[in-house]
Amino acid sequence: MRPITRTHRPKAGTEPVDLRSDTITVPTQQMRSAMAKAEVGDDVLDHDPTMRALEERVAALIGTAAALWTPSGSMGNIIALMAHLDRGDEFLAPAGAHVLEAELGTAAWLAGGMPRALEHDAGPGKVSPDAVRRAASTTGPYYNLRTKLLCLENTHNAAGGTITAPDEHAAVAAAARAAGLAVHLDGARIWHAAVALGVPPAVLTVGVDTLQVCLSKGLGAPVGSVVAGSAEFVAEARRLRKMLGGGVRQGGVLAAAGLVALDRIDRLAEDHARAARLADGLHERGWQVQRPQTNIVLVTVADIAGTLRRFDDAGVRASAIAGKVRLVTHADLTEADITAALDRIGPIERPRDGVSRMRPARR
Amino acid sequence: MRPITRTHRPKAGTEPVDLRSDTITVPTQQMRSAMAKAEVGDDVLDHDPTMRALEERVAALIGTAAALWTPSGSMGNIIALMAHLDRGDEFLAPAGAHVLEAELGTAAWLAGGMPRALEHDAGPGKVSPDAVRRAASTTGPYYNLRTKLLCLENTHNAAGGTITAPDEHAAVAAAARAAGLAVHLDGARIWHAAVALGVPPAVLTVGVDTLQVCLSKGLGAPVGSVVAGSAEFVAEARRLRKMLGGGVRQGGVLAAAGLVALDRIDRLAEDHARAARLADGLHERGWQVQRPQTNIVLVTVADIAGTLRRFDDAGVRASAIAGKVRLVTHADLTEADITAALDRIGPIERPRDGVSRMRPARR
Amino acid sequence: MRPITRTHRPKAGTEPVDLRSDTITVPTQQMRSAMAKAEVGDDVLDHDPTMRALEERVAALIGTAAALWTPSGSMGNIIALMAHLDRGDEFLAPAGAHVLEAELGTAAWLAGGMPRALEHDAGPGKVSPDAVRRAASTTGPYYNLRTKLLCLENTHNAAGGTITAPDEHAAVAAAARAAGLAVHLDGARIWHAAVALGVPPAVLTVGVDTLQVCLSKGLGAPVGSVVAGSAEFVAEARRLRKMLGGGVRQGGVLAAAGLVALDRIDRLAEDHARAARLADGLHERGWQVQRPQTNIVLVTVADIAGTLRRFDDAGVRASAIAGKVRLVTHADLTEADITAALDRIGPIERPRDGVSRMRPARR
Amino acid sequence: MRPITRTHRPKAGTEPVDLRSDTITVPTQQMRSAMAKAEVGDDVLDHDPTMRALEERVAALIGTAAALWTPSGSMGNIIALMAHLDRGDEFLAPAGAHVLEAELGTAAWLAGGMPRALEHDAGPGKVSPDAVRRAASTTGPYYNLRTKLLCLENTHNAAGGTITAPDEHAAVAAAARAAGLAVHLDGARIWHAAVALGVPPAVLTVGVDTLQVCLSKGLGAPVGSVVAGSAEFVAEARRLRKMLGGGVRQGGVLAAAGLVALDRIDRLAEDHARAARLADGLHERGWQVQRPQTNIVLVTVADIAGTLRRFDDAGVRASAIAGKVRLVTHADLTEADITAALDRIGPIERPRDGVSRMRPARR
Repeated sequence: MRPITRTHRPKAGTEPVDLRSDTITVPTQQMRSAMAKAEVGDDVLDHDPTMRALEERVAALIGTAAALWTPSGSMGNIIALMAHLDRGDEFLAPAGAHVLEAELGTAAWLAGGMPRALEHDAGPGKVSPDAVRRAASTTGPYYNLRTKLLCLENTHNAAGGTITAPDEHAAVAAAARAAGLAVHLDGARIWHAAVALGVPPAVLTVGVDTLQVCLSKGLGAPVGSVVAGSAEFVAEARRLRKMLGGGVRQGGVLAAAGLVALDRIDRLAEDHARAARLADGLHERGWQVQRPQTNIVLVTVADIAGTLRRFDDAGVRASAIAGKVRLVTHADLTEADITAALDRIGPIERPRDGVSRMRPARR
Repeated sequence: MRPITRTHRPKAGTEPVDLRSDTITVPTQQMRSAMAKAEVGDDVLDHDPTMRALEERVAALIGTAAALWTPSGSMGNIIALMAHLDRGDEFLAPAGAHVLEAELGTAAWLAGGMPRALEHDAGPGKVSPDAVRRAASTTGPYYNLRTKLLCLENTHNAAGGTITAPDEHAAVAAAARAAGLAVHLDGARIWHAAVALGVPPAVLTVGVDTLQVCLSKGLGAPVGSVVAGSAEFVAEARRLRKMLGGGVRQGGVLAAAGLVALDRIDRLAEDHARAARLADGLHERGWQVQRPQTNIVLVTVADIAGTLRRFDDAGVRASAIAGKVRLVTHADLTEADITAALDRIGPIERPRDGVSRMRPARR
Repeated sequence: MRPITRTHRPKAGTEPVDLRSDTITVPTQQMRSAMAKAEVGDDVLDHDPTMRALEERVAALIGTAAALWTPSGSMGNIIALMAHLDRGDEFLAPAGAHVLEAELGTAAWLAGGMPRALEHDAGPGKVSPDAVRRAASTTGPYYNLRTKLLCLENTHNAAGGTITAPDEHAAVAAAARAAGLAVHLDGARIWHAAVALGVPPAVLTVGVDTLQVCLSKGLGAPVGSVVAGSAEFVAEARRLRKMLGGGVRQGGVLAAAGLVALDRIDRLAEDHARAARLADGLHERGWQVQRPQTNIVLVTVADIAGTLRRFDDAGVRASAIAGKVRLVTHADLTEADITAALDRIGPIERPRDGVSRMRPARR
Repeated sequence: MRPITRTHRPKAGTEPVDLRSDTITVPTQQMRSAMAKAEVGDDVLDHDPTMRALEERVAALIGTAAALWTPSGSMGNIIALMAHLDRGDEFLAPAGAHVLEAELGTAAWLAGGMPRALEHDAGPGKVSPDAVRRAASTTGPYYNLRTKLLCLENTHNAAGGTITAPDEHAAVAAAARAAGLAVHLDGARIWHAAVALGVPPAVLTVGVDTLQVCLSKGLGAPVGSVVAGSAEFVAEARRLRKMLGGGVRQGGVLAAAGLVALDRIDRLAEDHARAARLADGLHERGWQVQRPQTNIVLVTVADIAGTLRRFDDAGVRASAIAGKVRLVTHADLTEADITAALDRIGPIERPRDGVSRMRPARR
């Protein structure tokens, strides 16, 4: 069944295939039913019972002592960074990380952290234990920057939904801890990594102090993420969430949808298969495509803005990230949508003179 | 009909009458139905259609050019303060204001504002135009604090849900503007003032630059407030909301409940009548009660913590504010609940020795 | 001997008597000599030897384990507040305190503190132990403001250089500590209190965690204050000073002047005597004067700006504070200057109609 | 003549040659005399006359409309970043820049900026106009990071005191401005670049909005830097300086030394010649040395901490920067000191097995 609603006006004769992000998925009927009958309470004064159920289930799933719902993944990440960092503390993150690029500088101005972007020296989206060891500066005179935190991202969005495997993750987290750093994992799409690897999500959170997972991207809940860690961290996170204005009242209506979303983890395999098919099809059509590991397809083009416009005109919506065009598969797509997208995009137009006209692409 | 759910465990034989806050109200069946069939979209990337409808309806109702949904009233207030204030700018607010007392210092550490609490020289919860003129410091040498903002609150929660009438409001806002200040109105319970006065809400927003109104207190929506002002302000507010992690995806599910909530403004008269009955009953029973103007009853007691405990044991839940006991009427109460509350609280116990044992009460 | 230099241009025939502040004092010849031969080193990389000598001498004088030079009293106060406060923590201070009124809101935006101004319920510039106990909120639910710090000021500038006596100070500090608060003392003019009371300064710092004392006001050093406390605090303060850009290199040149300034504490008695003479003279001339306890004379007038202009035209420079005219005696004045000031100011002009034309005065 | 004082204890028979930094230089007799007779005033209330003279002279020298003394270069840079950046604005800087590495994260937590380090694609310490164009993101949806500022550094300390030539500087500043960015120049050692190139300093500030220059490094003043730009910027900078606690009273005593320091720009050529001799000597002794462009010599070693210890034991003090050993020549050195340093360091020890034992060096 197609989702009830769509935001974007179909063009004459063609409803666009929207591959901009998996955030656009709309709640399923089952989620809507769950919202309509959720048991609720005041989650600021007391603890909304459905919120509590959701938080406990997520904590169990990802292997933490406790968890806290937040209105967005950005808020989950901010809260963790606020908890870990004092004024001016340095944190490390793989280049292109969401906390570096897509959270409006909150890591700096709000959490007070000084970011150091690490090159992906261990493969796309990944940093090596050695790179962490080299970058961490935890001793030295009082006037030195002090590194306090490593912030990982799995899958790594801007690198193309790339996976860090359990052993790789464990090694880099261990290196960080050995160097005296705390470890936060932006696991907005941890579910994708777990499904692609065929492992439980908790296998991918070994050695982290805190992490954030998203209910609204691949899993399709309308609103919400979860930030997790020790009971002490979550108590502080609740306070920080209230500070940021993220304490809500009868949030159980959203948590109910989140609980349904957690039943949908396995279906991400479908999104991965479709991303693979999309990438293969684009490759066949002459596009320079990165082979997807999960549900994100990156295409290298000379002119990003122009390509996005051309796609849009043809009835395919995409987005830009890290100097590339990004296509994301998600629960609201069908096989037919992938076929239609490939048909509409078609073969790449070669410049007549055979010269690639590269325009500066950011990052 | 009683709401579907309750957070707090009934005691043996008595379900407590919960008068702690109007934030505890649970969504109505109509709200739940609306949530179940709301048209939605990605409100970060695009603009969720139900969100848009809600924001437009609120803007029309309160007389602003534009409006923006936020997950909480605190976030609405913070966003406005962030927009108005630069590092170290002074803002004025009546003593006990929510932005001063109940937002975890965000006015200071997050918005960068230096608060100056003004005495209620024009009646409970109200400041006079003269007080604003005297307090505003907008000239002077570069090393002086600069006053930038007056932050009003109507009704004023900590003063006991007190109303600022249209002419009083207009005069104090005009004085602020004449002194070069911007004006923000914390109108979380503006609906109560409007209903009690029998005027449209927009009459109470004359002369303000920005305001915040709440959908989840008296009106009973599960989650959400709205911050409003000019189109330019709302564009900036959208950016600030994203910064704070308050940008949500398919928020239309919540906006749908908010739209239903807006149909419930008139029923606040019932809450006011019940608050009056509650206050009268307490007065008859010997309690020192402030006559309520809206839905908040303040009781002056010698021992706040002890009184709250005694009430709780008797099956009545209350809260503390500004050195008093607060009882709030709301949509999830019945006439029978008020009767039960009065019966359970009963007459005040006089100390046997006739000496009132005042303990220090904060503020 | 008159100081070498003066900033302000004499009017025709009259060099103004500058009573705006004791900050205007210029270094003595002895200070200048000391600066010219100070032993110095890089105080960031190492520890400038004269800086060290100054810091040790001040620590001994005020009874703390350690101390740190800062370029200004404001920086000393900011550093202490930064060390004591986390985001949104509440701090208490007597109304009109320098940290509230005269530091450009840094207590809020930089240290992250939410100020609560306490009325002077124990006399001018002073708060009672009970007021501190009542105001301190250190328990309660997670969404409550938490009070962390009491910030005292002795002498209290805006109240008119008023003194808190040792027993009063000890009682209020003890009350704060018993309530779980840290205590910071803005002792910019602690020297004045000590001299007026005839006690060692350390008697006035009992029970404080941190304090700031000024070398450049009454004592006349050209630049510098000292912030002091435990060794741990001072280690952190050194780091915070570097953050704020207050780490200097060969600061020994300034510390040398500071060491000379510390020899001048006793001469403050002269400033106090002159302030008394000035106040008496103004009273005789019909002005509404507050009797000075130290070196600050406050005059209540109907029109502050007009009075300052009138004084200036007559050859007397004064300043405004807390809705009053402030006259400050200092080391660069002579007895003749006081006489001249009184002659120039002359009797207050009575309005012809006998009606006092009070204009709004701030605070 | 040797400077009057030294911080560090000579070892038996050897006073160490201190090459850690040019910040260790102590004031000359001429500076001390100037300090002893400086005309001064209260620079917060009025404007200290010697401060004013210094600020005007620096502004003329570097080609700005106005200038402001600050206690440190860090404060000058912070003030400029605070003036340019709003919460979360991105700024670009060449990797290793002082504002990124050596200011305790203030660019982030204090100025609110989100840093993006740019590779040195145009030579050591230098970024190309194209790199700036590619990195600048000033359009895009509201939820995107907005780039606001390019922060240059000339000479670039961590790259080895490297020079950006006038045409290179002008091109990169123009690219930034064309992209809509403001430009700040950390010109702490701009004097070195100017002397090495034989151009007036103002040639190297073309196209910048603000810059900071240091009086206390190569020029040898005991304390102080200057931040400069338009009159509007300097007015705001004065306010920001007061906020940070950097407003001082009779600062003329320091400004007097600063004025003398400005007469010493030409003698930096001597430091450059000595750095060249030092580098040549080290090269001859088998060390892997970067050829110095000004007064900074970088040596690549396998074990930084061990090398620094070994040097120290031999009577040569050095520091670490960007994963290398740094030796800095300055005004308090003689030719004999360079000779002594080379003799004491001696030839590099080759590992017996011929294998270089690289240990991880940060950055």
